[in-house]
Amino acid sequence: MYQVDINSDLGEGYGLYTMGMDKEIIALISSANIGCGWHGGDPMVMDETVRECKEKSVAVGAHPGFPDLMGFGRRNMSVTQAEAKAYAKYQLGALQAFTKSHGVPLQHFKPHGALYNMAATDQKLAAALAEAVYEVDPAIIFLGLANSCMIRAAEECGLTVASEVFADRAYNADGTLVARNQTGAMIHDTELCITRVVRMVKEQKVKAITGEDINLKPDSICVHGDNLKAVELIRAIRDAFAEHGISVKNLRSIMS
Amino acid sequence: MYQVDINSDLGEGYGLYTMGMDKEIIALISSANIGCGWHGGDPMVMDETVRECKEKSVAVGAHPGFPDLMGFGRRNMSVTQAEAKAYAKYQLGALQAFTKSHGVPLQHFKPHGALYNMAATDQKLAAALAEAVYEVDPAIIFLGLANSCMIRAAEECGLTVASEVFADRAYNADGTLVARNQTGAMIHDTELCITRVVRMVKEQKVKAITGEDINLKPDSICVHGDNLKAVELIRAIRDAFAEHGISVKNLRSIMS
Amino acid sequence: MYQVDINSDLGEGYGLYTMGMDKEIIALISSANIGCGWHGGDPMVMDETVRECKEKSVAVGAHPGFPDLMGFGRRNMSVTQAEAKAYAKYQLGALQAFTKSHGVPLQHFKPHGALYNMAATDQKLAAALAEAVYEVDPAIIFLGLANSCMIRAAEECGLTVASEVFADRAYNADGTLVARNQTGAMIHDTELCITRVVRMVKEQKVKAITGEDINLKPDSICVHGDNLKAVELIRAIRDAFAEHGISVKNLRSIMS
Amino acid sequence: MYQVDINSDLGEGYGLYTMGMDKEIIALISSANIGCGWHGGDPMVMDETVRECKEKSVAVGAHPGFPDLMGFGRRNMSVTQAEAKAYAKYQLGALQAFTKSHGVPLQHFKPHGALYNMAATDQKLAAALAEAVYEVDPAIIFLGLANSCMIRAAEECGLTVASEVFADRAYNADGTLVARNQTGAMIHDTELCITRVVRMVKEQKVKAITGEDINLKPDSICVHGDNLKAVELIRAIRDAFAEHGISVKNLRSIMS
Repeated sequence: MYQVDINSDLGEGYGLYTMGMDKEIIALISSANIGCGWHGGDPMVMDETVRECKEKSVAVGAHPGFPDLMGFGRRNMSVTQAEAKAYAKYQLGALQAFTKSHGVPLQHFKPHGALYNMAATDQKLAAALAEAVYEVDPAIIFLGLANSCMIRAAEECGLTVASEVFADRAYNADGTLVARNQTGAMIHDTELCITRVVRMVKEQKVKAITGEDINLKPDSICVHGDNLKAVELIRAIRDAFAEHGISVKNLRSIMS
Repeated sequence: MYQVDINSDLGEGYGLYTMGMDKEIIALISSANIGCGWHGGDPMVMDETVRECKEKSVAVGAHPGFPDLMGFGRRNMSVTQAEAKAYAKYQLGALQAFTKSHGVPLQHFKPHGALYNMAATDQKLAAALAEAVYEVDPAIIFLGLANSCMIRAAEECGLTVASEVFADRAYNADGTLVARNQTGAMIHDTELCITRVVRMVKEQKVKAITGEDINLKPDSICVHGDNLKAVELIRAIRDAFAEHGISVKNLRSIMS
Repeated sequence: MYQVDINSDLGEGYGLYTMGMDKEIIALISSANIGCGWHGGDPMVMDETVRECKEKSVAVGAHPGFPDLMGFGRRNMSVTQAEAKAYAKYQLGALQAFTKSHGVPLQHFKPHGALYNMAATDQKLAAALAEAVYEVDPAIIFLGLANSCMIRAAEECGLTVASEVFADRAYNADGTLVARNQTGAMIHDTELCITRVVRMVKEQKVKAITGEDINLKPDSICVHGDNLKAVELIRAIRDAFAEHGISVKNLRSIMS
Repeated sequence: MYQVDINSDLGEGYGLYTMGMDKEIIALISSANIGCGWHGGDPMVMDETVRECKEKSVAVGAHPGFPDLMGFGRRNMSVTQAEAKAYAKYQLGALQAFTKSHGVPLQHFKPHGALYNMAATDQKLAAALAEAVYEVDPAIIFLGLANSCMIRAAEECGLTVASEVFADRAYNADGTLVARNQTGAMIHDTELCITRVVRMVKEQKVKAITGEDINLKPDSICVHGDNLKAVELIRAIRDAFAEHGISVKNLRSIMS
């Protein structure tokens, strides 16, 4: 009876440059966050990635980032809210041209890298992104970090909102992620990752780094396809989900 | 009883850089070709330009170009048809995010600069652009050079097609434009420009550089807003149109 | 017997886009900070600007910025020190190709926009920039904000260092600039600007916004050429300098 | 007593994107053509690649391309001669900042991709590139396709010129390369590649695709590091050179 989405970033190559194990990942997820040409991705890559998602019945989302290809969108930039809003619309619209061409819906929107991290704690930036989505198409689901500013901003905006959680990250007592530069931020033990993520889905709880249980609403599990080990973790998670009667479905199926 | 569209390129600034006399031009035209961020234009400029077009009841079109900001999209690039198609979709979609936000239709598509010139004589490139438009939204009008490959390609694709003519350019006997680097290519005499353009609209004819009359279907007059003199030419054309009972209407009104 | 340099940003156009009143400014300054293609400027503009500086006997400096043409290098970016160092070297070297071609020395280095502002208060970033200059050519003068981190970092690095001051900006008691978003940050009274800048040069003092005198070492006055009013201010400053026996000389003449 | 250079393209990654097997290749070549940030490469990559070349005693050259990262510099662009010249200077200078920092000479200049191919048959474009090099530093060696326009243009300019040949490409009777889209253009037989390249070095001759012997002056062999098979070919060539008493030396050693 349990169900959850699994999302991953895809389509982040650029020209001759490749990025990530898209072919392996796409078979294991239910929703894809597709680069929109600014931090990664280009029109040819976007077209091909939407095509592949359609073939594999993976739902498509826009994954816009800062205009910083050299930094892969991972560097903070001090943009205004108006800029963030316009940048989000531009990239969202660009991807929609390809989803329309392939006849698939644009399911969701999830900001990338530094834009995601900044919007997780900056309510005004988060609101700018949510408004961008709402004004382009209010039916698009906003996918953001559980318990972050993004979730509140998107809800206030009137969007359907999905919360994502991480199998391999530690959480603070307030439900936020332990910063990567702190000890214990990453969970390297595959078994522990699986135990935690299964409990998140079944009990909507996870143990914080300080020991207490916290509440989390895991609409989607975020996974990465950087290397073979990462792909193995996804496979292990899917196996565990199968054992525990957790079905993997895309966000649209879960949210409606 | 005569009617014709007047189109011009707008929204080609970038960041702090400005381009053209948008404010003056927008009051004089019926359709705007808006830069989509590759040869000129950026998301903030696109948003602002669509807003102003809406305010002034000017119809909005996408004006995509090559990925060559440094050359303002005026340099030929040897892209494949698949690339041209994907590039056109990307830019068209990006602009649609802003037309949707402002609640205005995206009326037309007109390629920019070198992409326009190459597509005027390269049937396969023209077909790639037409297919891009058709696959994203078959209701969008394709605006191209009268008597060029673009017109044929867009018609074959099933799109509504609009032919544009120039008041200040000489024509060859086959209906193509005299190349800019040839003597007499540009017509500098304002009165002559007006006489020619009025005749084009009323008689669908213009005298070629070699003396004979040729047939032209002027759905839209292309004008430029580079400087005050150019703006004066547009005003003079509009005055002449008023005298001759030619109403200026956007493409959608004319084509339907 | 007094002497001071006057510097301004030039060569910040890009392709067909123009920026600032370079032609008017170049006749009024002794040192030019030339854009290096990232926040503004392109190879053609750089070539032409170096040529004009040579003709007018204006000394040439590199003016590198963040990789953010859309934001004109005015937006903070969280680059690492290694990145800042490499970015500075790249742009400095690129400009040197043109100074070598024209047979003029590269006199100085002054960071642009957000890179300048961040380096004014971030000692590590300032050190990264100073090291970049030193490693490429230790004879290049580092031009930075008087009393800022940049001055200390460049001195520690072993570079010749020049301090710049502003005629139209208010100063805090600690010698730093009053932030632009604070009341009184900009001095709009031309006479007051002139009185202040003449006193800076003759007495090496200026009155802080809080009333007390502070010490400043004005090797160079930074002026802007954004509009006609700005150009008029430079002319007025030059007239006042002539009256007060202050000669305008480039940094190399002053520092050696 | 025979000696020849082996060159390859290195340092063409960009940000997080990697390209080619630089680590494997660098141990097998004598001269590296390093990307300058336009078609590939960025300042961090350039810095690191120059450092590695220094460590492995591989001579460093500039490898500038068109401003087309999305096309990896492989698409023809209709730039003017003045633009080509300025673009070459910009990229050459940028790389020099890193060679100066590391205390190694900039040995040579070799255009990349479409810029190389266009300059091989366009005498004016070739002259623009040669002049760019000469004006920045006349001691830099121009490395170009044997028997092409580039060789003549660089010689006329007064530069030291090195001719490069290909082990795995067929030649026409006039000494030019058989175009890639023609049958037999690529030689896939490793033994044949080796036999041909050894003969080129020892006899300065190669058999054209039409059967006759043609003369070639192989100062440098161009090799690629795209994949393991390519790396194996380089190893096989080096083994054959060792057997035939052909020493591999960088261009500076050979040309002086």
